[in-house]
Amino acid sequence: MGTVLLSELATEIVIPVCAVIGIVFSLIQWFLVSRVKMTHERPATSPSSSKKNGFHDSLIEEEEGINDHNVVAKCAEIQNAISEGATSFLFTEYQYVGVFMIAFAILIFLFLGSVEGFSMKSRPCTYDQQNLCKPALATAVFSTVSFLLGAITSVLSGFLGMKIATYANARTTLEARKGVGKAFIVAFRSGAVMGFLLAANGLLVLYIAINLFKLYYGDDWEGLFEAITGYGLGGSSMALFGRVGGGIYTKAADVGADLVGKVERNIPEDDPRNPAVIADNVGDNVGDIAGMGSDLFGSYAESSCAALVVASISSFGINHEFTAMLYPLLISSVGILVCLITTLFATDFFEIKAVKEIEPALKKQLIISTILMTVGIAIVTWIGLPSSFTIYNFGVQKVVKNWQLFLCVAVGLWAGLIIGFVTEYYTSNAYSPVQDVADSCRTGAATNVIFGLALGYKSVIIPIFAIAVSIFVSFSFAAMYGIAVAALGMLSTIATGLAIDAYGPISDNAGGIAEMAGMSHRIRERTDALDAAGNTTAAIGKGFAIGSAALVSLALFGAFVSRAAISTVDVLTPKVFIGLIVGAMLPYWFSAMTMKSVGSAALKMVEEVRRQFNTIPGLMEGLAKPDYANCVKISTDASIKEMIPPGALVMLTPLIVGTFFGVETLSGVLAGSLVSGVQIAISASNTGGAWDNAKKYIEAGASEHARSLGPKGSEPHKAAVIGDTIGDPLKDTSGPSLNILIKLMAVESLVFAPFFAKHGGLLFKIF
Amino acid sequence: MGTVLLSELATEIVIPVCAVIGIVFSLIQWFLVSRVKMTHERPATSPSSSKKNGFHDSLIEEEEGINDHNVVAKCAEIQNAISEGATSFLFTEYQYVGVFMIAFAILIFLFLGSVEGFSMKSRPCTYDQQNLCKPALATAVFSTVSFLLGAITSVLSGFLGMKIATYANARTTLEARKGVGKAFIVAFRSGAVMGFLLAANGLLVLYIAINLFKLYYGDDWEGLFEAITGYGLGGSSMALFGRVGGGIYTKAADVGADLVGKVERNIPEDDPRNPAVIADNVGDNVGDIAGMGSDLFGSYAESSCAALVVASISSFGINHEFTAMLYPLLISSVGILVCLITTLFATDFFEIKAVKEIEPALKKQLIISTILMTVGIAIVTWIGLPSSFTIYNFGVQKVVKNWQLFLCVAVGLWAGLIIGFVTEYYTSNAYSPVQDVADSCRTGAATNVIFGLALGYKSVIIPIFAIAVSIFVSFSFAAMYGIAVAALGMLSTIATGLAIDAYGPISDNAGGIAEMAGMSHRIRERTDALDAAGNTTAAIGKGFAIGSAALVSLALFGAFVSRAAISTVDVLTPKVFIGLIVGAMLPYWFSAMTMKSVGSAALKMVEEVRRQFNTIPGLMEGLAKPDYANCVKISTDASIKEMIPPGALVMLTPLIVGTFFGVETLSGVLAGSLVSGVQIAISASNTGGAWDNAKKYIEAGASEHARSLGPKGSEPHKAAVIGDTIGDPLKDTSGPSLNILIKLMAVESLVFAPFFAKHGGLLFKIF
Repeated sequence: MGTVLLSELATEIVIPVCAVIGIVFSLIQWFLVSRVKMTHERPATSPSSSKKNGFHDSLIEEEEGINDHNVVAKCAEIQNAISEGATSFLFTEYQYVGVFMIAFAILIFLFLGSVEGFSMKSRPCTYDQQNLCKPALATAVFSTVSFLLGAITSVLSGFLGMKIATYANARTTLEARKGVGKAFIVAFRSGAVMGFLLAANGLLVLYIAINLFKLYYGDDWEGLFEAITGYGLGGSSMALFGRVGGGIYTKAADVGADLVGKVERNIPEDDPRNPAVIADNVGDNVGDIAGMGSDLFGSYAESSCAALVVASISSFGINHEFTAMLYPLLISSVGILVCLITTLFATDFFEIKAVKEIEPALKKQLIISTILMTVGIAIVTWIGLPSSFTIYNFGVQKVVKNWQLFLCVAVGLWAGLIIGFVTEYYTSNAYSPVQDVADSCRTGAATNVIFGLALGYKSVIIPIFAIAVSIFVSFSFAAMYGIAVAALGMLSTIATGLAIDAYGPISDNAGGIAEMAGMSHRIRERTDALDAAGNTTAAIGKGFAIGSAALVSLALFGAFVSRAAISTVDVLTPKVFIGLIVGAMLPYWFSAMTMKSVGSAALKMVEEVRRQFNTIPGLMEGLAKPDYANCVKISTDASIKEMIPPGALVMLTPLIVGTFFGVETLSGVLAGSLVSGVQIAISASNTGGAWDNAKKYIEAGASEHARSLGPKGSEPHKAAVIGDTIGDPLKDTSGPSLNILIKLMAVESLVFAPFFAKHGGLLFKIF
Repeated sequence: MGTVLLSELATEIVIPVCAVIGIVFSLIQWFLVSRVKMTHERPATSPSSSKKNGFHDSLIEEEEGINDHNVVAKCAEIQNAISEGATSFLFTEYQYVGVFMIAFAILIFLFLGSVEGFSMKSRPCTYDQQNLCKPALATAVFSTVSFLLGAITSVLSGFLGMKIATYANARTTLEARKGVGKAFIVAFRSGAVMGFLLAANGLLVLYIAINLFKLYYGDDWEGLFEAITGYGLGGSSMALFGRVGGGIYTKAADVGADLVGKVERNIPEDDPRNPAVIADNVGDNVGDIAGMGSDLFGSYAESSCAALVVASISSFGINHEFTAMLYPLLISSVGILVCLITTLFATDFFEIKAVKEIEPALKKQLIISTILMTVGIAIVTWIGLPSSFTIYNFGVQKVVKNWQLFLCVAVGLWAGLIIGFVTEYYTSNAYSPVQDVADSCRTGAATNVIFGLALGYKSVIIPIFAIAVSIFVSFSFAAMYGIAVAALGMLSTIATGLAIDAYGPISDNAGGIAEMAGMSHRIRERTDALDAAGNTTAAIGKGFAIGSAALVSLALFGAFVSRAAISTVDVLTPKVFIGLIVGAMLPYWFSAMTMKSVGSAALKMVEEVRRQFNTIPGLMEGLAKPDYANCVKISTDASIKEMIPPGALVMLTPLIVGTFFGVETLSGVLAGSLVSGVQIAISASNTGGAWDNAKKYIEAGASEHARSLGPKGSEPHKAAVIGDTIGDPLKDTSGPSLNILIKLMAVESLVFAPFFAKHGGLLFKIF
């Protein structure tokens, strides 16, 4: 088997140190962003910050209105409104989250406690019948605690991310006066704050929890890591609120604002006269920042937990090889260092001088982090794992070499890059697919929609092959442990992924603020350029999120099957097959709910915006101010209310299926919803992204072809706007929410597996 | 085990007699339709035919223009143009079909012959190793022959169906002058001709083939029924041309005609000035009649073959119980008699007196046929099966009681009815779902599309539960034999299903002819009423087709697994799982192709129509005639060309996966594409149907609510038209084509199973 080069003590030091480095780095980024002052002593700040960033004055393209105190004050005011709106939404959401967390914590305790009738006696371990494990009641208690820890970490990360985003948006606008490069750096740094905080916090809390739980569990690693799975469930169930609630919020506000503003009143996007404009900007923060953050945090927590729980019954767990056991955390630790270096390439090593350099700079982030991380994985695998080890593959022992595990992690990492590039190809208007969609606007909205849907369907092909190859490789080499570490590989560069992803909504907000503050056309052009690049990176981020969700949920599914003591999931049995076909239906049911939710919430917003236009005298003329706060409130209330049905579907399905139909049918449901949901999620996000960028392509008019379709207001442009509006809920609500569906059902099944295995399948027991 | 009440001789008599009764009945219907004369000696015909139909003169609402000779001549002329266009399309298609048939026949022969190296020696049977079976070469030869038989029967049925439809459309228009009831009867009778011809021919040819093959095979029933599976493959591969080619044709013409005519030129639908108008009407016949016919014929042939091949290795096959062996054919025989009685309820026992009676009359057809058929199944099961028998369930023997098999067939039959009703609920504008979609047109096309997509997703839920329950019941009772007979149960009333389905496009054409012939508003209103009911029944027909396709392909999948000698299809093996996820992706790939095909073909049509409007002087003013034939030719060529990529995807996937990845991965692919495809197919058809009827709801303005959205040309109506146009390719091309994808891949795998089992999985063998 060989020895592990990294000693237990070194592991105990490396992991928290990397996490702390990540936190410190994010604080430094925050500090650098904060040097852009929002008060009107501007001249003092500008030179010093430009020196810090390594910029020479000659690079500043053109300083516009730099001494205009009114603009700064106005930006600050708008920023405050957005920040307050976002905070108010999140606090309202947290009230529900709090109730949900407590209720669900009780549920976990009761279900898991009841497995052995709340017995406090030690029992033989599930896999190692010779040894005694801690009582089931301990699993119930510690699972509940780790659930709460995961939930709180997720909430905290999302909240801080949103805070920095709303802190940075107006600063980006102000920096845009000095040039696109400076604005880019502010937006990107703020994204990095979010990325590093989340990755480092997630790692640190998990690390501390393992060490604290170990005080009680001692050598019972099987029980310890079973209890730790609650952390994944906690993270993931908060993502339900973040992704689904936030997703409904953001699109209700956006669609509502557009339908009345752009379509009925014919005023531009982000016009301050539109009462829903603040709500729209708030939505970008709560949906795309806090929602995306909690989604990826959930994936990260789940894949770590899945890998740990599988490892706990491998030779690592049985021989108590601590370093090898914590291999998943070591991967994440190196990931933080790699992302740190990668970030410097965007902010310090190179400078953005022109608009056309933005997108390549962001793309380079992906490539650099992937290449560096491949080296990082190789090192961790070499020093952190024995040359070979044994895992349990549904009852059969399987020997895995360390280089095989390296390949598992690497294949996940590179599959992520491929998914990113394919997503870019299908959603960026630099390539023919989006241009074809734009071209189809000539014959009206109908052909635009048909071509857009076809594009989304087509964009599924290569990502699915990439996922299939990584599954095949990692599954063949190391069964479910392989899948879990492949997912971790894809998520190992999460800090960079989140940074470029969060950069998008920050730039979007910056543009909105520029428009609302009445800044010049030139500045708006700069923020638009940042935003267009952000649209593509947002699509890439969604691609990553879905790809990793697929791997994660397969890993969780595998862990569930192990824990529920099923050895095969045979499609050719009626119990499994009906699970499979019903599972494949669930993403449709769920999407129908989320789309309907956006529709209903948007209609409420439409009514309110119309009401304000009709009842507030002088609003259209810009003489009176609209009641922004009321729109924020409507979006908040509607999104919370509307997320209940889809949320209930996700949370209740595993409980109902497991309890009444048993673990075989539940396995079918998980497999079915996974293979069907991943397709809809990818196609929905890419269709939406393509429509958005087809519209932007026509608006920007950068080529002969684009100009022949425009300008703004032409018939093809109107058709493109319809496509964009349809795409909004697809790409920002129903599509990404499916990640939650497939992951959350899997992790919930995993946590409740002992209960289902013992008491489940009531219906078949009765008949 | 008990004895079978029906003797072998009686079985040999009952089946062909029922088939001949079906054929004779359809000829009588044809004769009755033909009594509506298309020459201008009208007064002589009218009284006699109305007597025959049991109509009293008082029932004829209002005779309009009955003596207008010009109208008759014009109708005859238009009918000829449509009929010629349809014939020319089908003959062009048949040239390709011919080449395909020969090439594929050779492929079948080579693949199956090579299993035992073209050996002519007898070999031990697969399941009954004691006995000697006919050589593999015989299986190759007879499979090829039965493939050709299935293909030719399908082509013939589709062709005859199209002929009667184009024969009946103008006759329906002319009868509409005498009242809606008379027009209904002509349209329905013509549908019945198609339904009965197809059901009876399918049964008769299969019966004759079995008896002829038996002359060679003698007691080797295993070999005999393996060879018979080629019949299903033949029927199904023709459905590829009918459904996909016809589907692309119909929507290319429809979308092309609408985009220029309705949108650009602002002329009504079916206006004779539109050059694509004949092509559009031709499309209804080749897509909805010939295409639907070949699709359902394929399902029928496949489910019969799947049931027979499974039965051949059950106790029936081993003990040579001929009557019990032919139980699937007995079910179909009784089905013909039941449908015959059901038809009389629509045409002779009751009379349609008002527009509002049409839809209930058609719905009653479904209910009556289902109730009668339940009795029919009970009788066949009682006299045709022993009280218990043994089947083989993946290597394990399983005893089945005859009442259990009755339940299997009945659950399929009733699931079909439920699917029909749910489809009606979601696509008829009498209920709230479509009304809500219509209402969402207030805020524009974007909300219409969002609500429509959500409706389609939602409409999947109950049908999937219905399918899941029938799978669970039939699977639990009688494994794959149960699934196959459940599919047959759903298809047992195929003659009635096809009659009400074919009725739709005939009425649609009748309306088109009325418009083109310049008949009065009143007559157009009557044909519109027939058409609106037809829209709903068409959606119901599609629901049936998809539901049965799901069951059929599961049965074929089961038969494939048996024949490939796999005992479990374990999701938790990498080979199966990658198959599952890639399989679930295929429907998206396929839909992307078919949608793009419609788009490209429609664009060609748009260009031609525009060209004619621009170059033919006096066309818009109605002074010159457009060149209809050129549009027909463009649709024909484009649809044939565009069906090649999706066709290749379907035909090559099983061959490539089976040959290179082996039977486990292929099993995964089949299961994945089945559970994912059925969802997209149902949601696509229902979304499209709902948009179509939302538009019709606004146009008809039958309620206060509907009037508030209209009239024609209002903003909500324009939004509804956009939805309708998007829905066209979804409901008539990409959605229904998925039936072919899931069935054809399954039956192809079944036919090639021996080859894959022996020589497949090259890639894994090499590495």
